[in-house]
Amino acid sequence: MRLSRYFLPILKENPSEAQIVSHRLMLRAGMVRQSAAGIYSWLPLGLRVLRRIENIVRAEQDAAGCQELLMPTMQPAEIWRESGRYEDYGKEMLRIRDRHEREMVFGPTNEELITDIFRNSIKSYRDLPKNLYHIQWKFRDEVRPRFGVMRGREFLMKDAYSFDLDRAGAVRAYNRMFVAYLRTFARLGLKAVPVMADTGPIGGDLSHEFIILAETGESLIYCHKDLVDRDILSQAVDYDGDLEPLVRDWTGLYAATDEKHDSGRFAAIPDDKRIEARGIEVGHIFYFGTKYSDPLRAVVAGPDGEEIVVQMGSYGIGVSRLVGAIIEASHDENGIIWPESVAPFRVGLIDLRPDDAACAAFADDIHAKLKAAGLSVLHDDTEERGGAKFATMDLIGLPWIVTVGPRGVKSGMVELKRRATGERQELSPEAAIARIAG
Amino acid sequence: MRLSRYFLPILKENPSEAQIVSHRLMLRAGMVRQSAAGIYSWLPLGLRVLRRIENIVRAEQDAAGCQELLMPTMQPAEIWRESGRYEDYGKEMLRIRDRHEREMVFGPTNEELITDIFRNSIKSYRDLPKNLYHIQWKFRDEVRPRFGVMRGREFLMKDAYSFDLDRAGAVRAYNRMFVAYLRTFARLGLKAVPVMADTGPIGGDLSHEFIILAETGESLIYCHKDLVDRDILSQAVDYDGDLEPLVRDWTGLYAATDEKHDSGRFAAIPDDKRIEARGIEVGHIFYFGTKYSDPLRAVVAGPDGEEIVVQMGSYGIGVSRLVGAIIEASHDENGIIWPESVAPFRVGLIDLRPDDAACAAFADDIHAKLKAAGLSVLHDDTEERGGAKFATMDLIGLPWIVTVGPRGVKSGMVELKRRATGERQELSPEAAIARIAG
Repeated sequence: MRLSRYFLPILKENPSEAQIVSHRLMLRAGMVRQSAAGIYSWLPLGLRVLRRIENIVRAEQDAAGCQELLMPTMQPAEIWRESGRYEDYGKEMLRIRDRHEREMVFGPTNEELITDIFRNSIKSYRDLPKNLYHIQWKFRDEVRPRFGVMRGREFLMKDAYSFDLDRAGAVRAYNRMFVAYLRTFARLGLKAVPVMADTGPIGGDLSHEFIILAETGESLIYCHKDLVDRDILSQAVDYDGDLEPLVRDWTGLYAATDEKHDSGRFAAIPDDKRIEARGIEVGHIFYFGTKYSDPLRAVVAGPDGEEIVVQMGSYGIGVSRLVGAIIEASHDENGIIWPESVAPFRVGLIDLRPDDAACAAFADDIHAKLKAAGLSVLHDDTEERGGAKFATMDLIGLPWIVTVGPRGVKSGMVELKRRATGERQELSPEAAIARIAG
Repeated sequence: MRLSRYFLPILKENPSEAQIVSHRLMLRAGMVRQSAAGIYSWLPLGLRVLRRIENIVRAEQDAAGCQELLMPTMQPAEIWRESGRYEDYGKEMLRIRDRHEREMVFGPTNEELITDIFRNSIKSYRDLPKNLYHIQWKFRDEVRPRFGVMRGREFLMKDAYSFDLDRAGAVRAYNRMFVAYLRTFARLGLKAVPVMADTGPIGGDLSHEFIILAETGESLIYCHKDLVDRDILSQAVDYDGDLEPLVRDWTGLYAATDEKHDSGRFAAIPDDKRIEARGIEVGHIFYFGTKYSDPLRAVVAGPDGEEIVVQMGSYGIGVSRLVGAIIEASHDENGIIWPESVAPFRVGLIDLRPDDAACAAFADDIHAKLKAAGLSVLHDDTEERGGAKFATMDLIGLPWIVTVGPRGVKSGMVELKRRATGERQELSPEAAIARIAG
């Protein structure tokens, strides 16, 4: 993509409304624009990151045996009355009357609607277990939306719902999601710590939050250092096998947010293994048994024809929130530092003299070679000064920056910079491409 | 995917609420479920088709130089007041008050919001032309939603918006979309005829609808047969070049819906070239100049600093409607016949005796080989009778059906059926896979 054609409205000044770094950087980098309080339009650069995160979330849900569907944003109020949450939910739920005065809600979550789909479609124990998920925009009418996409009103969430015959089956489903979440956050370049959690308005008796460490996080977290140092991606996972030992391994070490903190247990951890840090919640999983299947009558016929009320769990990841959370966890004073797995483009290609025909041809040739190597490229072919071009690339945080200038045209060399470390090298274009392709 | 695990709630009976064939088949094939009047949940099989259509639409928009962003579903009422459409739009627009009594709407279209983004981001003629699109759920509160996803209330639409300095530039943008639409519908396996159209509530002075031929279509269309026989995909297209001759070639032949029909001109077409048929609108493009840029003050500075009000167009494709439209155009008495480009799986693999170990092993081996060849497979490993399995495969319309039974285990042969023609062959698994991979 050529920057001269790309819709990338960079802001030179820090926007005054942004209180936290991710909000500031997303506005400055032209990733999002606020369209109403807590409601954002995702501009091309931001949307590329959002989609990459979404695709990693999807791949790990599919690998864990979940099946994707898509529920609408608008839901009938009746099913919320059936579960008893229509009144409970309060003003955070956006209530709407259509032209025929029928009551609707803009879905803040989907326990009721998925249970309605289940009860109308699945009738036999033979069809279980099932875990169904979707990735859809939700709305929660926060009193005071803030922190950009971290606490917006319209937000993108992945929510999965498991259906099992008994508690043992439901705990297996829970364990699969527990492991899939660890893998998902690791692939996003994040250190996520699972902590026991309260179940809140969703209900239930087993719940974990996944918290990533970031200095600007809203909650305090206390945990054992080994939880942060562990590498889940190096472990082979068989989702059809018994995941209990793996889950026990991850839940056996101390981890708590301040609400549930036990300073006695924490003090028992060796000094050099105690972590006290700030964190951001990016995922939350629940096992809640028959809380919804009972009132909504989601039942199946068992082997002897008996009626079984299904056991359910739900599993959420804040997909749009993750864009902000990753920035909170990975930036410096010059801008964003994207992990390679979610970067909007792998390479920024700076042409210092696009008005010089030889330099432009050299840059075009490298652009073509990068693309041929399967690397996505944002090619700055604009008339801006060099300093402004470097600043823009640092701001938008692409992992690699290749700089081409008239001197390089003569020597046949480019400068390759790695955004995360600042390390620079003079290389031939071929060597630079090989280095980036890794 | 194994059918024993897949969430595919097939209906044995015709649902009484479905008046047209696509609605009936989508419900029976477990593709969608109505969650409220005119509001559907997309079950796994339906979502796969929706996503494949969406990806073809996206690829052709990108190829034509458009850039994807994503606007939210909720829009502030103010921008609709600025354009003057807040009152005009009537009850089809879903109006909402949030907890602070701020007026919002669930976007039925996005001319206002994209113009708001443009005016806040783009200030110079140097940044034009631009064509920005998104693929997002819209809501139109139809009085009487019907025909399933063909006229739903919450629906998925691709809408693009072009911004140019002058009329000539805007017409070039219009022509690019005209050609991209022909290519898009052709890739979806559809015969789409462009007809001159009224501009209606969007406004403007140049507009075409794209209508596909289907016996159950809602509108009457009269056109020259050559328009239907033409193959756009065999023509090389250079979106940076002059598309006027190509567009003139397609608009030079007679084509009209009954509102604009001119029986005199139609009678002048040779007998064997006159087509009178029913059709379904699947796309609509508009050039409307400054209808929105003027009231919303979307202006850029020209080369001499003068203020230029930008020229705009908008370009819509009904993505969720296309799922129904393709079925209307491609089905028989047994079910759907998916074009390969949008089929939810390429191959249905029927194991007639999954309880027979040798037969199951044979089927599993073929399943693995199909996957290794890059083909998506739905493997019916359930305990249903053979007849029911054949009926299900015909109903859901996968392009190829491979059947494995105990007889084939002995002979090493499978039956390969092509859904569109009903043609059957006995082949070795390798030959069948080679045939499918084409």
